[in-house]
Amino acid sequence: MSAAIDPLALTRALIHCPSITPRDEGAQAVLAETLEAIGFKVWRHVWGEAPDGPVHNLFARIGSGGPHFAFAGHTDVVPVGNRDGWSVEPFAAEVRNGQLVGRGAADMKGAIAAFVAAAAGNIPTQGSLSFVITGDEEGPATFGTKPLLDWMEATGNVPDHCLVGEPTSRHRLGDMVKIGRRGSVNVWIRVQGAQGHVAYPHMADNPVRHLVNILHALQARELDIGNAWFDPSNLEVTDMTVGNPATNVIPATAEARLNIRFNDEHTGAGLVQWIEKVAARETAGASVEAKISGEAFLTEPGDFSALLADAIRAETGVETEFSTSGGTSDARFIRRLCPVVEFGLPGQSMHKVDEHVAVDDLHALTRIYGRILREYFA
Amino acid sequence: MSAAIDPLALTRALIHCPSITPRDEGAQAVLAETLEAIGFKVWRHVWGEAPDGPVHNLFARIGSGGPHFAFAGHTDVVPVGNRDGWSVEPFAAEVRNGQLVGRGAADMKGAIAAFVAAAAGNIPTQGSLSFVITGDEEGPATFGTKPLLDWMEATGNVPDHCLVGEPTSRHRLGDMVKIGRRGSVNVWIRVQGAQGHVAYPHMADNPVRHLVNILHALQARELDIGNAWFDPSNLEVTDMTVGNPATNVIPATAEARLNIRFNDEHTGAGLVQWIEKVAARETAGASVEAKISGEAFLTEPGDFSALLADAIRAETGVETEFSTSGGTSDARFIRRLCPVVEFGLPGQSMHKVDEHVAVDDLHALTRIYGRILREYFA
Repeated sequence: MSAAIDPLALTRALIHCPSITPRDEGAQAVLAETLEAIGFKVWRHVWGEAPDGPVHNLFARIGSGGPHFAFAGHTDVVPVGNRDGWSVEPFAAEVRNGQLVGRGAADMKGAIAAFVAAAAGNIPTQGSLSFVITGDEEGPATFGTKPLLDWMEATGNVPDHCLVGEPTSRHRLGDMVKIGRRGSVNVWIRVQGAQGHVAYPHMADNPVRHLVNILHALQARELDIGNAWFDPSNLEVTDMTVGNPATNVIPATAEARLNIRFNDEHTGAGLVQWIEKVAARETAGASVEAKISGEAFLTEPGDFSALLADAIRAETGVETEFSTSGGTSDARFIRRLCPVVEFGLPGQSMHKVDEHVAVDDLHALTRIYGRILREYFA
Repeated sequence: MSAAIDPLALTRALIHCPSITPRDEGAQAVLAETLEAIGFKVWRHVWGEAPDGPVHNLFARIGSGGPHFAFAGHTDVVPVGNRDGWSVEPFAAEVRNGQLVGRGAADMKGAIAAFVAAAAGNIPTQGSLSFVITGDEEGPATFGTKPLLDWMEATGNVPDHCLVGEPTSRHRLGDMVKIGRRGSVNVWIRVQGAQGHVAYPHMADNPVRHLVNILHALQARELDIGNAWFDPSNLEVTDMTVGNPATNVIPATAEARLNIRFNDEHTGAGLVQWIEKVAARETAGASVEAKISGEAFLTEPGDFSALLADAIRAETGVETEFSTSGGTSDARFIRRLCPVVEFGLPGQSMHKVDEHVAVDDLHALTRIYGRILREYFA
């Protein structure tokens, strides 16, 4: 049995490192030292170059063979934002009225500290427990979890189940567990027309007319009505650009950008093909570029998610809700290796000024994670 | 009978004054002196302030009582444009291979010189002949023809018929007379939505979605199918602006600008009301601003236009076409006072580098204008 670790003290030590993505500023050294002290073997990897790197990544494991359970998360944080809006120094990690305030408290240094404190009290006697930690979840996610998973595959460190500690709780700790995520794709549509005078439209080809028709057709389609575990897929046009100062001129080009959040009834490639078809039907002058940020995925509710729900109920009395709502996380990469669910602190203050967590929640989350480990390895 | 005036020499003298709108640079003094020499009484008015003024305007009249015929036009010109594209100095008014080359040669110092030369040879023995000349037709048209018409009304100088000397001919002198013009209105539509994250569209209100729906509804309507004298009315969206750099953010506002060229089956106000109604039906967040540049008007073909057609045929053998196509001119203001038609030089080179007219066309136009005067006052 290792020495007890205080999750509040460890969260504060992590917040003291101003690890604004992709910087590390010593955060993973704090983590590595703590994990080594309780018996983990730690591997550290620095990948990538400016501007998206270098990125610090950490893998740690204790035990061998299965079952193999992994905690996953990130030590990087988003920028401070409006500094004047903060009531405290963002990296001082002050406790006020029972709340720990600081950048990364909720997203997600608090959960990482709870991982470590739970692990310290519940080292499995058989099987393996791992940590999969990256430093660029808040950035382009190029030099982080993806290559770390490749390394884990190459070195025989693939877990059987993974728990990501993103701040999934909404109003109170435990009220939501994420069992999947929608996919996301950004699409740029550019229409080349023919410039001309508005008084002679037959001598021109207005690209704005085509673009409006294309966007109208796209946003008029009901992509699906959702299903048991997913909200309906949704398309939003996020930008349009023409840049024509002359009131009497039909412009030569028009552009738009859109984003689709889609459930598991679609693939990113299928949606892009649909957009290409709609655009081509309107005009040969349209070109479509797309970047798929992630495909939709679902970890079907079963023994693994039931284990989480039971642990949450036992420690807090809260009946958790399984959800696939919200933005993307590194779970979209991990699902390639094993079933993955996400559960962590209340996230209402994440990415905002005065980001905070209740100290009581840090301790309760540590107890929940500890119970999960005990049940998993029982 | 006054002394003969050479339209080529007078055109060259006018071009030598670089009267880029709203500047005058002596152009109207040249005109005033020439008109006074052949017996006209001349009134000169300088109205307005920078940046759209001061603007030089000139009214001249010979004779009293009716019938009262007026020539109308402008001495200002558009800027030189790409100076390196010119094969000659733009204000040197050189003649090369039978062509007079210079800024304003076609639009419309050549026609003004032909007016004067025709008048000099055909001073009416009864009735009145006038010149209505402005210096800001190529600009915002605020301090030019509009207040000059007010002054003419106030001083008992309203003509019975008016001929505007805009370059209406297309392929050869006399092939087109404009008997009306479409109206023009510019409309700005701004939609205020509610910003949010693309992953939570129910927390936001995407203004781009509304704007696309509004524009689609507007451009889907067939405004009319045209009529005996007008092409169909036409709407073109000329600009769209969102300005949102973030792929995962639903923006707060979206804007578009459109132009409608409309025939005499519509009014500017009626079209703006329609747009306001379509926008309001889509969202309460839409606001509409409009600027009506001019209403559609038609001088129904009759004795006046027949007189022009006969004169053109007699001097050139060309069967002219009556048209209402193309952009706006000061005829949109003059039609308030009396029937107005437009006829002048071939306009293919207007507003371009190496603007030019055939010297033969200057003389032929002078003969046509002279014949019109003789028949009108016969």
